[in-house]
Amino acid sequence: MGYVHIGFTDSPHVQQSDRSILTRVPLRPRTVQTTFINPADLSRLVHVFDILAAVVFAVSGALVASRRGMDVMGFMWLAVITGVGGGTVRDLILDVPVFWVQNPVHVAACLATAVVMHFVAPRVESRYRTLLWFDAFGLALVTVAGTAKALDIGAPALVAIAMGAVTGSVGGIIRDTLGHVPSVLLRHEIYITASVVGACTYVGLNGLGLARVTSMTAGFLVTFGVRGLAIKFGWSLPVFRESATRERWKNARRDSARDDP
Amino acid sequence: MGYVHIGFTDSPHVQQSDRSILTRVPLRPRTVQTTFINPADLSRLVHVFDILAAVVFAVSGALVASRRGMDVMGFMWLAVITGVGGGTVRDLILDVPVFWVQNPVHVAACLATAVVMHFVAPRVESRYRTLLWFDAFGLALVTVAGTAKALDIGAPALVAIAMGAVTGSVGGIIRDTLGHVPSVLLRHEIYITASVVGACTYVGLNGLGLARVTSMTAGFLVTFGVRGLAIKFGWSLPVFRESATRERWKNARRDSARDDP
Amino acid sequence: MGYVHIGFTDSPHVQQSDRSILTRVPLRPRTVQTTFINPADLSRLVHVFDILAAVVFAVSGALVASRRGMDVMGFMWLAVITGVGGGTVRDLILDVPVFWVQNPVHVAACLATAVVMHFVAPRVESRYRTLLWFDAFGLALVTVAGTAKALDIGAPALVAIAMGAVTGSVGGIIRDTLGHVPSVLLRHEIYITASVVGACTYVGLNGLGLARVTSMTAGFLVTFGVRGLAIKFGWSLPVFRESATRERWKNARRDSARDDP
Repeated sequence: MGYVHIGFTDSPHVQQSDRSILTRVPLRPRTVQTTFINPADLSRLVHVFDILAAVVFAVSGALVASRRGMDVMGFMWLAVITGVGGGTVRDLILDVPVFWVQNPVHVAACLATAVVMHFVAPRVESRYRTLLWFDAFGLALVTVAGTAKALDIGAPALVAIAMGAVTGSVGGIIRDTLGHVPSVLLRHEIYITASVVGACTYVGLNGLGLARVTSMTAGFLVTFGVRGLAIKFGWSLPVFRESATRERWKNARRDSARDDP
Repeated sequence: MGYVHIGFTDSPHVQQSDRSILTRVPLRPRTVQTTFINPADLSRLVHVFDILAAVVFAVSGALVASRRGMDVMGFMWLAVITGVGGGTVRDLILDVPVFWVQNPVHVAACLATAVVMHFVAPRVESRYRTLLWFDAFGLALVTVAGTAKALDIGAPALVAIAMGAVTGSVGGIIRDTLGHVPSVLLRHEIYITASVVGACTYVGLNGLGLARVTSMTAGFLVTFGVRGLAIKFGWSLPVFRESATRERWKNARRDSARDDP
Repeated sequence: MGYVHIGFTDSPHVQQSDRSILTRVPLRPRTVQTTFINPADLSRLVHVFDILAAVVFAVSGALVASRRGMDVMGFMWLAVITGVGGGTVRDLILDVPVFWVQNPVHVAACLATAVVMHFVAPRVESRYRTLLWFDAFGLALVTVAGTAKALDIGAPALVAIAMGAVTGSVGGIIRDTLGHVPSVLLRHEIYITASVVGACTYVGLNGLGLARVTSMTAGFLVTFGVRGLAIKFGWSLPVFRESATRERWKNARRDSARDDP
C-alpha cells in the first residue's frame, strides 16, 4: 500500500494519538470496572506530559544561553529550538504537519520558560543534578511519543526507532551547535543510547502484539531506567582505541588547525 | 477546520500573495482616482523588493566567505544559504512548497551576487556601515513577507510572528555557524528583536481588522525603525547577571574545554 | 502547470526512478539484441550503487567520529547523517517523501558501516588516499541521482543542478559542523565544484534531448573525472585576494574574538 498523505493533514498530532489509543484499547463494557486508567484521561495526561517534556528541554536550552551570556532573545531562541526542534525534524522527515503549527502551546510554554529562566538561570544551574533527572524524564517521554508517531503512520521498525532517537536528541544537538558547547555526541554519556534502547523495547513489544499502553509504558520505563542508571553511576559507552594511530591523527589535526587562516 | 494542503501546492508563493492583496483590497471603482498605489503595481513592487532582500542577505553571506578566505564556490554556497535559508525553513515548517523550487529567481540573484562579491568583497566591506542599513531594509521586508505567508495559510498569531523572525534570522544563523563566526544569538544587538517587534505590530493590526497594506506597511516601518535606531545608537538588550555564579561556570567550562580531546 | 503533490506520495524514490528509466528508454523489441544493458538490470545496479554511495559517505562520517574519540553511538549518528543527510534535505526541499522512510535500507547500511568502523577506523584511516577515490565515486553517483530526482518532478534546470550539489555536499557539511572540523566550504578543494560541473553536464545533455542513460552516464563521468583530477593533482580554485584589506579584517576579528565572553 502506498503512503497516504491527505489523511494526516486533516488532524493535528495529539488528536491522532488520542484516536489511536481509543481504537487500539477496546472498551470491553463488561470489565470496565477493572480498567484502572480511562483511555481519554490517559491521552490528556500524555498531552500534559508532552508539554512538560518540551519545558524541561527548554530549560536546558536556556541554561546554555545563560552560560554564554546571551540576552533574553537568545534565551527564547535556544529554549524554543531545544524544546521543539527534535519533534519538528521528526515531523518534517515523516511528512506530517509540524506538531506546533496549528496549536503552538509547546512554543508558548518554551517562551515562558525562557523568560523566567533569563532571571533565575544561575539558581537553577546550582541544582543541575536535580535537573538531569527531569531531563531523563523528558527524554523518556519524547522518545516514546516520537516512536509512536512513526508507528502510527506505518513506518518500518528501524525508522520508528530512529524517530524516537531524533525526537530525543536533535533539539539538544542544535542547542549545543548554536551555543558553541561540545555536543552530546562528543560527551561519552549514555544519552542517545538510552533513547534507542527504550525505542527498541517499545517497537519490539508492539511487534509482539502487546497493547499500546503496555508497550509505551515499557519503552518509557526502559529509557528512563537506562538514563537514570547512567546518571547515578556515571555510566558511559566504551570507546575503542588504537592509541598510536589516534595520537598521530591528533597531531596532524593540530598542525592543520594551526595553518588554518 | 482541518489543514488544507492541496490548495497551496497549486500556486507558488508570490502569486499567492498577489491574489490575497487583490482580494483584500477592494478595487472601489468610484474612488479609484484616490488610490495612490495600484494593487497590481504594489504586488510587483513587493516581488522586486523580495528579491532585493535576498540579494542583501546574500551580500552578508559573501562577506563572511570573504573573511574566511573561501573560494568562489564557498561564496556561492554561503550567499545562497543566507539569502534563501530563512524562507526555506519557514516553508518547510508551514508545509507549503519551498518558494524557489518552481521559480529559482532568488537563487539566481544570490549566485550572481556571490560571483560579483568574490571580486569586490573587500571594497564592500569598507562600507560596512552603509551595508547595515541595507540589511535592516532586507530584514524588515522578509519579516513582513514571512509573517504574511503564515497568516495566509491561517496559522495562529504566535506562529505567524515566529515565522517572521525565522525568515529574518535563520539564514544568518546558518551563515554564522558554517562560517565559524559568533552568531547573531551571541552578539547583543537588537536584530531578531526588531524582527519580532515588527511581526507583532503586523499581526496585532491585522487582528484589529486593518487593511492588509496598512498593517504590512506598519510592520515594515516598525522593524526598520527599531533596527535602524539600534544601528544608530548601538542599542542592545540588557543581560541579567548574577556574577559570582556565572564566574564559577565560566571556570568550569574552561576546565572542561582543556580536558576535551 | 501547477505542482502535483499526490502523485509522488504514492511511490517511494527507487521505484520512481526505475519506472522513469523504463519509460524513457523504449524497449525496441526488434533491436533488443543490440542493448548491452537491460533497463531492469540497470535500475537494480543503480539502486545497489546508491546504497554503496551512502556507505562510502558513512565511512567518512565514521572517520570524523573516530578522530574526535566518539563512542559507538556517535559513530552511528555521524555515519547516518553523512550517509543520508544530503538526500534527506533534497527530498524535503523538493517536497517528495524522504527516500529512506518507507524502506530504510540506506540507514541500515550506514548503521552497519558505523559499527564495523568503530573497530577498524584507524586502519581505514591509514588508507585515506584509497578512500578518497571511493568518496569521489560516491559523490559522482549521488550528484547524478539527486539531479535526476529533481528533473523527474519537473524542477527547473538551476534547481536540478542545485539539488545535485546539495545531495553530494550537505551530508559532509553537517558532519564537519557536528564534528567541529573545518568544513568542505573552508578547504580549497575541488569538491562541490566537481558536483556542480557534473550536474550541469547532465542537465545540459538532457536539455539537448539525449537519452536518460547517456546524459546520466556523462554527468557521472564528468563529476568523477573532475574530482579525480583534483585528488591526483591537488587542484583547487583560485581565491581572489586584496591582501591589505583582508589583513585589517583578520586583526579586527581576532580582537573581537578576544573580547568575546
